[in-house]
Amino acid sequence: MNRRFTLVAGFLVLVVAFAVMSTQTSTQTNQRNVSLIVANGTVVTMDAGRRVIANGSVAIDGTDIAAVDTADAIGRDFRSATTVDASGQVVLPGLINTHTHAPMVLYRGLADDLALMEWLTKYIFPAEAKTVSPDMVRAGTRLALLEMIQSGTTTYADMYYFEEEIAKETKAAGLRGVLGQTVIQFPVADAKTPGEALIRAEAFIKAFKGDPLITPAVAPHAMYTLDGPTLTAARDLARRYGVPTLIHLAETQDEAKTSQERFQTSPIQYLDRLGFLGPSVLAAHGVWASQSEVELLRARGVGIAHNPESNMKLASGVAPVPAYLAAGVAVGLGTDGAASNNDLDMFEAMRLASLLHKVHTGDPRVVSAVQALEMATIGGARALGMDRAIGSLEPGKRADVIVVSMASARQTPMYDPVSHLVYTTRGDDVRTTIVNGKVLMRDRKMATLNESAILAEARQWAVKVRAAVN
Amino acid sequence: MNRRFTLVAGFLVLVVAFAVMSTQTSTQTNQRNVSLIVANGTVVTMDAGRRVIANGSVAIDGTDIAAVDTADAIGRDFRSATTVDASGQVVLPGLINTHTHAPMVLYRGLADDLALMEWLTKYIFPAEAKTVSPDMVRAGTRLALLEMIQSGTTTYADMYYFEEEIAKETKAAGLRGVLGQTVIQFPVADAKTPGEALIRAEAFIKAFKGDPLITPAVAPHAMYTLDGPTLTAARDLARRYGVPTLIHLAETQDEAKTSQERFQTSPIQYLDRLGFLGPSVLAAHGVWASQSEVELLRARGVGIAHNPESNMKLASGVAPVPAYLAAGVAVGLGTDGAASNNDLDMFEAMRLASLLHKVHTGDPRVVSAVQALEMATIGGARALGMDRAIGSLEPGKRADVIVVSMASARQTPMYDPVSHLVYTTRGDDVRTTIVNGKVLMRDRKMATLNESAILAEARQWAVKVRAAVN
Repeated sequence: MNRRFTLVAGFLVLVVAFAVMSTQTSTQTNQRNVSLIVANGTVVTMDAGRRVIANGSVAIDGTDIAAVDTADAIGRDFRSATTVDASGQVVLPGLINTHTHAPMVLYRGLADDLALMEWLTKYIFPAEAKTVSPDMVRAGTRLALLEMIQSGTTTYADMYYFEEEIAKETKAAGLRGVLGQTVIQFPVADAKTPGEALIRAEAFIKAFKGDPLITPAVAPHAMYTLDGPTLTAARDLARRYGVPTLIHLAETQDEAKTSQERFQTSPIQYLDRLGFLGPSVLAAHGVWASQSEVELLRARGVGIAHNPESNMKLASGVAPVPAYLAAGVAVGLGTDGAASNNDLDMFEAMRLASLLHKVHTGDPRVVSAVQALEMATIGGARALGMDRAIGSLEPGKRADVIVVSMASARQTPMYDPVSHLVYTTRGDDVRTTIVNGKVLMRDRKMATLNESAILAEARQWAVKVRAAVN
Repeated sequence: MNRRFTLVAGFLVLVVAFAVMSTQTSTQTNQRNVSLIVANGTVVTMDAGRRVIANGSVAIDGTDIAAVDTADAIGRDFRSATTVDASGQVVLPGLINTHTHAPMVLYRGLADDLALMEWLTKYIFPAEAKTVSPDMVRAGTRLALLEMIQSGTTTYADMYYFEEEIAKETKAAGLRGVLGQTVIQFPVADAKTPGEALIRAEAFIKAFKGDPLITPAVAPHAMYTLDGPTLTAARDLARRYGVPTLIHLAETQDEAKTSQERFQTSPIQYLDRLGFLGPSVLAAHGVWASQSEVELLRARGVGIAHNPESNMKLASGVAPVPAYLAAGVAVGLGTDGAASNNDLDMFEAMRLASLLHKVHTGDPRVVSAVQALEMATIGGARALGMDRAIGSLEPGKRADVIVVSMASARQTPMYDPVSHLVYTTRGDDVRTTIVNGKVLMRDRKMATLNESAILAEARQWAVKVRAAVN
């Protein structure tokens, strides 16, 4: 009886142990293996519900986001050999800079506080005439990419010359770019005529269409630097290949005046008359727009790149951003080129967007912190026509993710992560930058770029730039 | 002969050796021994000639600057056991924050994007009513001091409650403060009546008058929160002791409206009618001032604390800063309290002063980088009536010096250090902060404050603050 009991008991213990083991095994089997988990942060998703997860994680599989949930749920459902610990930090979608001229970082601070024409004709144009080359564009782009990765920008829209060199460097660094080959009426470094520029633009589109990181685009410079037929040809080229069109539009009062004199209408109305405006057009600035033009841009599906710091520093004016947002226009934020800014910090773009429109309207409720963050993420994605792929942390979207420190004295205490992201955070607080599932910076260490070599090279270019304007 | 030659030669060698030694000794004797040398930086002096020394050093002896010159000249004339190497960095006078409420850092980001009255009555006043105490003021001040030292502020003007606690903490941390005990009509944490507040203010003045770091001041809150007799009594108290008077003035359109309704005149005219305005008055904001009032403030010798970020975030309006500067009014910069800013970064105050007035006037030449830096240094010193002691790097002035890194990607390349200080530099770039000859932070390491303890304590206070507004 005693022996039989022992045998039965022993058998039962074995059964229970086996059951427990098989449960554990099956749990492990049910966990999906992913390439990377960003774990235990305050996750600001920017999804449709603007969900903020106090202790959350993001599971990344290859180039895509697999799941966004509480740290517990992700820990239960996913496992990965690689984890980025985001404890005490904020995890959010990578920032989208919708307007810049990357290589112009080499001209930052070359000249400030001048009237626009003096600044352009005495400094920027001579510097560009004497220094823009494939080599300069590559060196400047690398410096800009370094700065963007370090300050949490994961996608940027660019308009410059030798855009294929910018594309190659951007791909090598691992950033996402909507890169527009410039078309302009007068002779520039990479094209003697606008016809040549159009040929260049087409070759550029063919070379990069379908690339996972680079979206090639056509960048007719502006309505006042191009004639009607060239504007139309550039737009047709973009339409033919189904790529975005990037253009400066209604930036200054001078542009509005020029348009009025030449065409007896405003820059926006003029482009509409040409049949230029449409859903894949991203208009940089849009400062001088009437309420009816705001509604026209909305009706045409045009996106706006709002550049508050450049508009302030160059005294271009104040874009009607509250009106754009109220009308439902897709508005993104941009820094503009660093020659007129003088850096590529999108946190500063958010802060200035919020501050500028409050004081301009006299209403402190205008452009709230969450609206500023929207413009820098999902709004920018909409303006670029890429909101199905980027702009928020949601399963199925590309894994463009940043991790931001909130440990500094100036960020202490923290009542609301979104307030802090907009009002007290700088690009330097970004610790980790992930694009397309790949870690480009981890704890401020660059993975794809050689920081000291890039800085040394930029300082060498500065000697040539200085000589060019002396 | 051979022996004699050897003897003579030996004698000559001795003579020469002695001569060389005595020359070296006399060189050493002529070198003045000083307590600290900040060596080999780009020295932005902010002296009358706005001299910038490409490779310069600052010799500091005790609390004072002994000399500012090329690195070679200082190396020849001075020696010190302690040297701060500023190679590749910029050396400039410590920044002067002319308006803040230090302990309010504990309320930063508590509520944003609200109409002023809702923000005050639903959040700030309830939080203050339930949490302001000597303990809270000490904890908040320590956090503010940490942030200020880390971001290069060496002197700050403050208006708050329990100002003696603020003074003790400021002295302990080694910062310079112009600290104003608040006088206000309604009951507050440290005084049930304005009479009590005046008694407090007098005791505070007596306790700290003559202190090398603390300048006690009287801080009547504003013309709309005090009756005429109390305003006059506060001003008389300051005059009796020869200390500064700090007041909020012409900040909002509501204040102007209230003044018009009650006194049929503007806030500035009202104070002048009371005989309040004079050379030792520092008026914070001065947003709603007409051209004739700008000239009145100049005639009375009143200084202005301009707070661009607070004025923007609270949508108070745009102060006529170009008019103040043109009239010769002493204008300093301030951050205002971090509840409305949301940090104490004076680099951002400089940048916003420059950007705001450019876009507001439509003229990109307005408030140049050097003018912004002037307001944050020598201009602030003038506004505080302390320009003989601080605000520039000149022999005989107090040794308030900061060393700023220029090594980041966003600061590369550098054509002009002043442009970079204003347009691309943040408080976090400050490496070393020296006040009154004492190093308070060296290479980001705090000398007088315990950073982790201060941050932990602030997070504990945040729990109480959050409970107070729920």
